[in-house]
Amino acid sequence: MASDSEKSLLSGLLNPTTQINHKLDPKRRRFRRSRSAPLAEFVPGEINGTNEAQSPERSESFLDKIHPSFRKVVIYLIFYLAIGTTCFYFVMDQINGKKIDGVLDSVYFCIVTMTTVGYGDLVPNSAPTKLLACVFVFSGMALIGLTLSKGADYLVEKQEILLVKALHVRQKRGPTQILKDMETNKARYKCYLMMALLLLLILVGTTFLATIEKLDIIDAFYCVCSTITTLGYGDKSFSTKAGRVFALFWILTSTICLAQLLCYIAELNTESRQKALVEYVLAKKMTNVDLEAADVDENGTVGAAEFIIYKLKEMGKINQEDISLLREEFENLDVDQSGTLSTSDLMLAQSAETRP
Amino acid sequence: MASDSEKSLLSGLLNPTTQINHKLDPKRRRFRRSRSAPLAEFVPGEINGTNEAQSPERSESFLDKIHPSFRKVVIYLIFYLAIGTTCFYFVMDQINGKKIDGVLDSVYFCIVTMTTVGYGDLVPNSAPTKLLACVFVFSGMALIGLTLSKGADYLVEKQEILLVKALHVRQKRGPTQILKDMETNKARYKCYLMMALLLLLILVGTTFLATIEKLDIIDAFYCVCSTITTLGYGDKSFSTKAGRVFALFWILTSTICLAQLLCYIAELNTESRQKALVEYVLAKKMTNVDLEAADVDENGTVGAAEFIIYKLKEMGKINQEDISLLREEFENLDVDQSGTLSTSDLMLAQSAETRP
Repeated sequence: MASDSEKSLLSGLLNPTTQINHKLDPKRRRFRRSRSAPLAEFVPGEINGTNEAQSPERSESFLDKIHPSFRKVVIYLIFYLAIGTTCFYFVMDQINGKKIDGVLDSVYFCIVTMTTVGYGDLVPNSAPTKLLACVFVFSGMALIGLTLSKGADYLVEKQEILLVKALHVRQKRGPTQILKDMETNKARYKCYLMMALLLLLILVGTTFLATIEKLDIIDAFYCVCSTITTLGYGDKSFSTKAGRVFALFWILTSTICLAQLLCYIAELNTESRQKALVEYVLAKKMTNVDLEAADVDENGTVGAAEFIIYKLKEMGKINQEDISLLREEFENLDVDQSGTLSTSDLMLAQSAETRP
Repeated sequence: MASDSEKSLLSGLLNPTTQINHKLDPKRRRFRRSRSAPLAEFVPGEINGTNEAQSPERSESFLDKIHPSFRKVVIYLIFYLAIGTTCFYFVMDQINGKKIDGVLDSVYFCIVTMTTVGYGDLVPNSAPTKLLACVFVFSGMALIGLTLSKGADYLVEKQEILLVKALHVRQKRGPTQILKDMETNKARYKCYLMMALLLLLILVGTTFLATIEKLDIIDAFYCVCSTITTLGYGDKSFSTKAGRVFALFWILTSTICLAQLLCYIAELNTESRQKALVEYVLAKKMTNVDLEAADVDENGTVGAAEFIIYKLKEMGKINQEDISLLREEFENLDVDQSGTLSTSDLMLAQSAETRP
């Protein structure tokens, strides 16, 4: 999902010296820009401002760009909870169950609904409230989806560097080497980090339920599992004031955390499959048939660039459609029909454009 | 997720004549193989059997390959439900709530737990049962995740062709054109199909609950929403024998269907972002700086293949690492150091290998 943005963030961290170069060398900056490009927040700005004079600021805003998208998720979340709490506060008399405190119950009900835990310790009891709950559970699911794709990645990104440094502190390797290792084992490190965080949340939740809510240790663990998986049978739930305050933060964090872990495991799976494929393609012997197929410009020999394209296609990273589209674009640009692009083509194209 | 396998399935459907060609023309088959390659089921077979004599069978097994992976999910599901039902059947006396029939209740409890709906109309009441439920909810989640990534895609793939044909039946366009349209609007069609299916499931569920479970129409809709989102407050649930039998199929289908729809919406979002980026990269003017950066073989001019690689990198489809890896591979293969691969390089490489 956000893996491209991560990659570019890391590539900056991997080699801090290149980052300084970007500001001096316009060619290098261009490389960075192309890598960061898949982010939606970035593209429209680029499209609107193709003006070269703006370039220096752009390379700075690049590092800030993950911040706003994470901030956006937090703003949406606050917005959702504010509206939800207000709505449910005014219909609290139409909600049945164990009530403790007006506002607290509203936020608690809102979070239990949004995360689809749905204990059932508080249940809507009138037609409008029921429909309201339906609206909130759907929008809550969408919001959780948004959080999964944006927010958590940002935090993990920040945290994993510290974790990896800590893990490797005894080994005599430079930070550059460590970060390089991390880059190659990216998905695995993210999994470990999420697992560690989830274990911590399970531990905290179980301890809390056992001490504050006075549950048996098995019951506490059972309630924790029932909550983080969003199962929420509801036979055990947060029934004290302190419990519900704790639940607000804990439910939201732990459910998102488990969902994120599952996403990372899926990513890890995809990555290892992709890796196996790359290895296979690299190990595969080149035959005359391959040579013929790889010959883009049909001149009888295969250059380095042609070879790269052919292998990328075999790896499934690109497809024939991408190639055809760009091939067409190339022919449009090759004004002098020489089969190569040179400065003269660019000048010819420019003069053709300035002509009225 | 499984988009590459879909693409290759469709590419076969798009142009049925090329499929016949594959069997005759070994070069063409190679293209197909590289496209289908990202599938894990396919790669190991290829790796083990690099033997050319096996090729003809391989192009046939290609179309069958989605079948086994879907079958696998169904087998896992049956396996899970069989174990779950057996386990819960033997501990039914340790489960509290409204019971109707031993086996039915066990399957019902198993499905309500697996999908994380967790109504709470049946709840475990002893330490071992509680821990058993914890185990089943985690493994159930993993299984649902597997189903999302494999099973549903296969069904949609089969169905969408019929749907698209039906939608376009009034327009005077050939099936090839329709399938081409579908290919470009792939994610959108999948969304529509899932939405239609989900609406049907909501309608069926609401009608069933209103007629068989004798719920008020609002309550029926509320229970449907509460179920498909896996909220499961549990104040309304399936409490008759017919209701629980219906629930077995309906809960599983509808929760997976909603989850799959959300996945497709996310995919649609990614796709439109990627499209915007491709348009931006294509519209961007080539400058001298770009020319220099695109010159892979550093001969002063940019060939078609070099141009394609540069633009692919700008589109974020490939990164510098991919290029470096393949560049290295190319240099290894270029035995005569001519800067191009030709038949002589391949022969030199072969003779070097056969030498003892």
